[in-house]
Amino acid sequence: MPEAVRAVVMTGPGRPLELRRFPAPRPEPGGAVLEMVASEVCGTDVHLHHGRLPGVPYPIIPGHVNCGRILETGGPLQDVEGRPLAPGRLVTFFDVFGTCGRCWYCLVAKAATRCPKRRVYGITTSADEGLLGGWAERIELKPGVRVLPIPEGLEAEDFMGGGCGLPTGFHAVERAGVALADTVVVQGSGPVGLNAAVFASLAGAGRVLVIGAPAARLQAARRLGADDVLDITDVPDPADRVRWARERTAGRGADVAIEASGTPAAVPEGLEMVRDAGTYVVVGQYTDAGDAAINPHAHLNRRHVTLRGCWGFEFTHLHRALLLMARHVRRFPWRELVTRQYALEDAGRALADMERLAVVKALVRPSV
Amino acid sequence: MPEAVRAVVMTGPGRPLELRRFPAPRPEPGGAVLEMVASEVCGTDVHLHHGRLPGVPYPIIPGHVNCGRILETGGPLQDVEGRPLAPGRLVTFFDVFGTCGRCWYCLVAKAATRCPKRRVYGITTSADEGLLGGWAERIELKPGVRVLPIPEGLEAEDFMGGGCGLPTGFHAVERAGVALADTVVVQGSGPVGLNAAVFASLAGAGRVLVIGAPAARLQAARRLGADDVLDITDVPDPADRVRWARERTAGRGADVAIEASGTPAAVPEGLEMVRDAGTYVVVGQYTDAGDAAINPHAHLNRRHVTLRGCWGFEFTHLHRALLLMARHVRRFPWRELVTRQYALEDAGRALADMERLAVVKALVRPSV
Amino acid sequence: MPEAVRAVVMTGPGRPLELRRFPAPRPEPGGAVLEMVASEVCGTDVHLHHGRLPGVPYPIIPGHVNCGRILETGGPLQDVEGRPLAPGRLVTFFDVFGTCGRCWYCLVAKAATRCPKRRVYGITTSADEGLLGGWAERIELKPGVRVLPIPEGLEAEDFMGGGCGLPTGFHAVERAGVALADTVVVQGSGPVGLNAAVFASLAGAGRVLVIGAPAARLQAARRLGADDVLDITDVPDPADRVRWARERTAGRGADVAIEASGTPAAVPEGLEMVRDAGTYVVVGQYTDAGDAAINPHAHLNRRHVTLRGCWGFEFTHLHRALLLMARHVRRFPWRELVTRQYALEDAGRALADMERLAVVKALVRPSV
Amino acid sequence: MPEAVRAVVMTGPGRPLELRRFPAPRPEPGGAVLEMVASEVCGTDVHLHHGRLPGVPYPIIPGHVNCGRILETGGPLQDVEGRPLAPGRLVTFFDVFGTCGRCWYCLVAKAATRCPKRRVYGITTSADEGLLGGWAERIELKPGVRVLPIPEGLEAEDFMGGGCGLPTGFHAVERAGVALADTVVVQGSGPVGLNAAVFASLAGAGRVLVIGAPAARLQAARRLGADDVLDITDVPDPADRVRWARERTAGRGADVAIEASGTPAAVPEGLEMVRDAGTYVVVGQYTDAGDAAINPHAHLNRRHVTLRGCWGFEFTHLHRALLLMARHVRRFPWRELVTRQYALEDAGRALADMERLAVVKALVRPSV
Repeated sequence: MPEAVRAVVMTGPGRPLELRRFPAPRPEPGGAVLEMVASEVCGTDVHLHHGRLPGVPYPIIPGHVNCGRILETGGPLQDVEGRPLAPGRLVTFFDVFGTCGRCWYCLVAKAATRCPKRRVYGITTSADEGLLGGWAERIELKPGVRVLPIPEGLEAEDFMGGGCGLPTGFHAVERAGVALADTVVVQGSGPVGLNAAVFASLAGAGRVLVIGAPAARLQAARRLGADDVLDITDVPDPADRVRWARERTAGRGADVAIEASGTPAAVPEGLEMVRDAGTYVVVGQYTDAGDAAINPHAHLNRRHVTLRGCWGFEFTHLHRALLLMARHVRRFPWRELVTRQYALEDAGRALADMERLAVVKALVRPSV
Repeated sequence: MPEAVRAVVMTGPGRPLELRRFPAPRPEPGGAVLEMVASEVCGTDVHLHHGRLPGVPYPIIPGHVNCGRILETGGPLQDVEGRPLAPGRLVTFFDVFGTCGRCWYCLVAKAATRCPKRRVYGITTSADEGLLGGWAERIELKPGVRVLPIPEGLEAEDFMGGGCGLPTGFHAVERAGVALADTVVVQGSGPVGLNAAVFASLAGAGRVLVIGAPAARLQAARRLGADDVLDITDVPDPADRVRWARERTAGRGADVAIEASGTPAAVPEGLEMVRDAGTYVVVGQYTDAGDAAINPHAHLNRRHVTLRGCWGFEFTHLHRALLLMARHVRRFPWRELVTRQYALEDAGRALADMERLAVVKALVRPSV
Repeated sequence: MPEAVRAVVMTGPGRPLELRRFPAPRPEPGGAVLEMVASEVCGTDVHLHHGRLPGVPYPIIPGHVNCGRILETGGPLQDVEGRPLAPGRLVTFFDVFGTCGRCWYCLVAKAATRCPKRRVYGITTSADEGLLGGWAERIELKPGVRVLPIPEGLEAEDFMGGGCGLPTGFHAVERAGVALADTVVVQGSGPVGLNAAVFASLAGAGRVLVIGAPAARLQAARRLGADDVLDITDVPDPADRVRWARERTAGRGADVAIEASGTPAAVPEGLEMVRDAGTYVVVGQYTDAGDAAINPHAHLNRRHVTLRGCWGFEFTHLHRALLLMARHVRRFPWRELVTRQYALEDAGRALADMERLAVVKALVRPSV
Repeated sequence: MPEAVRAVVMTGPGRPLELRRFPAPRPEPGGAVLEMVASEVCGTDVHLHHGRLPGVPYPIIPGHVNCGRILETGGPLQDVEGRPLAPGRLVTFFDVFGTCGRCWYCLVAKAATRCPKRRVYGITTSADEGLLGGWAERIELKPGVRVLPIPEGLEAEDFMGGGCGLPTGFHAVERAGVALADTVVVQGSGPVGLNAAVFASLAGAGRVLVIGAPAARLQAARRLGADDVLDITDVPDPADRVRWARERTAGRGADVAIEASGTPAAVPEGLEMVRDAGTYVVVGQYTDAGDAAINPHAHLNRRHVTLRGCWGFEFTHLHRALLLMARHVRRFPWRELVTRQYALEDAGRALADMERLAVVKALVRPSV
């Protein structure tokens, strides 16, 4: 075993990334160490680099969605079904840990994504605590971190093509309560929007429309089953986009719309794309980009609409998303979303490419 | 039988009300004629008088929530349980009629309040069609209008004390999905807000807080079971009101908040009063009073909140609200909400008193 | 136009079918007359012929799921979207009519399938009333009967391959609340079971298992997406079948099981195939075939299971099932279920073949 | 502190109870020791004494629902709201502990009552492990056991009057989804049935009917808000009881029925008391008392009924039940259910009185 492993460290907002050496980690009892195969470059990482998230304990090692091989375990390790996980196995893990199971949100509201104790790999874990982010040669899994084997028939590239958007899009579709034959509009063609489109199809939607940009992402939407797409750079006026959506939804608007754009103005626009008594899920507003003007009478009350905010995801979403990926990977080519892979030393370039939407999905790999 | 009956006619927005004589009506087959006992002066009537609702076929006879005695029927008449309704019986009726049962909203979306064929007594019925509003000595019930007997033990004053707010508040609470022991905040202390507070208690809320004005309405809220009330004239700063609500909800905010104020700015304020993963119902924005600024990140996405617009009500809400009123009329003294009753010739004064909130609930009666 | 049309009449339980001539019908205002293309021979028709359903007004013309061309309309005719339907159009119709929209079940319970006024073509309509069943050259559509155009790209054989089981299976899956990645067991491989398997897949099931017989139906199940099938003639012991299902569901049992077999003993067997806190839908017990022994402690209480009876279907199920058939007809070859087509004069043989399970789906056609 | 504390030990099925001395316990870190005030004698304890539950690690100290004062804590102790709990405080605790939060049932099915790791004080805890049952002078609370303060205004007798039936009845009503104005039939007038009746009222039922025996329990039902009661010793024929229930529910049956009787034959009887498309909850079948004969066609399919088994309860049910008890203790006099209190040495008599229904609720107290 080497005496040191390399990892990318984000030392603070706006500062250049650094490649540092850490002592080779050993697993705690109940934990594990993975040899990293690939880690995602997520829109969140761009936000982290701009300092847009509160309470981040810089320096951090980014990379919250990851794929690796088990190198060593601190005792027997099992998946959620109770099946043993041995060294050599290709796995991912649920990046959220520490959810207490004891607080009011966990026990009474049953809203685990709002547990104040929950922590997230690569976001709320400091590099001072160890290798707790995926842009590294190895990663330490704390005791209690839930490990999921990559199902037979899937490779790291398939899973990573889904990335963070896979369980997030799954969660948004579940929260939307898509019913059989519903028409679904997705605003935004980034990883979350594309995965929301996939899971809307899988949940039995009768028609899926994706609105976004740039063209490459909309082509990906088509390959992932969207019936029709609209490029917002071609149609810059929101009223025209609403008209486009309504023309494709019997003039009524969609049964379900899912906001995955991150732009506040998308919210009133999306509300106009939903039919009366329909459902609108807001999942894309991960950081505070300002206010939006909505009309409580016209958008909410008279429309009898249901609007749901959707924050993060739970283990069940990742677990079930992975089951469905294994079943449908030929129908929905997630791996094509991986536009480019970067070595650890090129992580800064990955962030820059991500920010200017030059890639759909970027990965950081120790061995490209 | 007299040869003519009197009715109040609203000839158009901003015009004085007129007292006109109409030929004494006879029931159509399957319909009925009621001798009016009392009709509500609702906030909607104030809106109608200002011309704030689209598509109103002036001249109209206002009065959509009504209580009367059956004078004559056009053949056998039954309630929803199949029990016969004979002349002399004190009844009310569901003011919405004409819902088609055949359109996409009725059959596929099952959103009957959005059926384009539905019509409403006293609002979308013209005085040229007949006595189809309650500010009159008699009213004609068209075939298909659903008649509900006032249950044993209730008088016209009890039912009219609930008025239009009774089924509307019921609907809002049902749509909120109030769970046992939930804390519920109601914004607005008009008839809808007060009834929402009552039905929140009846649905098993652990705590009900009402925010509104003026003092007389908040005293009514107390008598109707509110645990605590806040007078917005005493606390004009929304941030202070949010703090007040959070101090009473473990710092988290309420499980459920119900907007029944009609003010757009109440929406972002209410969203800050709801706990993460809680539910917010917007029922009070019956007319367009402008936009509100909400923050999609802070108010919706990160909060994982569910927001539901709530439009109108259905027969089931009125039917069930009446059953519960009969059961709980001693615990919740709805009739005390009737501040004042007006003769037909004083209907204009009733509107004026309503508009300046001088009354909680005003009635128009042919015989005061 | 011919002066008479032929129709198959079931004069009473156990009696031979008769081919009779009826006067050529003309549409009532708001109604229509169809030239029949094909009518289903459903398991229900076998029950009707044995007199197993109460209150059937023999003589009847069987055939409740039908496909035909509009011959004449009694005024403008529209589909639920408001689009005009002109003569020559290939259509089906919702066989249930007369649902009152006024009774307690319609208005309060919102359980339209339990409205006492509802009537069903080919089942509760007498031949004395006219051509109100599909085993005929023409059929009369009463005013209020909901007509659905067969979508572009579908032919009569596609729709009829789904038949009565199409909306029934859809309804069962909707009532089951299949969640993304759920494992679903279907008991029964008749038309209802096969369609339930299809819609379970369409609703995002992670795995679909079908248990039934004979082999031809199980082969159809495979073509319609079942992951695994079990032939009950090979495995006659219910305990072995339960073991088979549990081996395929992590030892826990399925998230959802759907009974579509018609055998009372299938109910306790199915309850043992459902996981704790799972859902079991009983849709196949259309006639009374006797009691089943269940253990309230072991099957219900300790299992924390949800069991739902599922009766009939509503317009929305047929409408949405048809939308999904149009979308997925290449993935799920419904038309292959049509094993054989019979001329009107051979309807008796169709019944006999249906009863001995010699066919998956049989059709009666005026012109074979 | 005394050197030894006394506790009642059930050494095995059918054997006399023994009063034994145990070393005075000290709290583990994160745990606590309570001085017992009162412990419940539950129907489950009768089952335990007959050996009707599988896997019980005799010898055990019975007593799973308890009230005591904090004697000592192993470090800071908090309630679910984060408020500190100091020695001297009157508390109860959630008797279920060890739920893993990591298994398939916890994480994917979210059915915590089916977690295989969960343990229950006084039932699955052996006396060899320590003072882990309430029929004792003191009790040890393991780290992770959730402690709930008895709210201001409530005394031990109030809470213990509710006992185990309080959260169980709450859970049954929640699982029933009682809607405002529903009619609810409760089968069984033991503690679970009586609490189900209370929470049905609190959830807004329009009418609550209780069927049970003996007379004293039905009188209690009346005091706890039942509108009508039926004594099964007066009406031994189930068909007559069904008729009684239907006469009080418009001939249709109740919207909701809750089985809390423990008798298998109650299940088909209750299914006949539920209206079409209504809901039936089976909560009373805690042990295996044999099979019941149901008719899948008549009871399930044609009725379009929803039937839910209901097992145990979760922390949230106890927490919220206690909030509502504090609010409504004057309206619903739970403490009157405590018929008799027994010293530790009389615990055997308490079991005997419980078994022959001589008491509604019995308590064991170290100091009577």
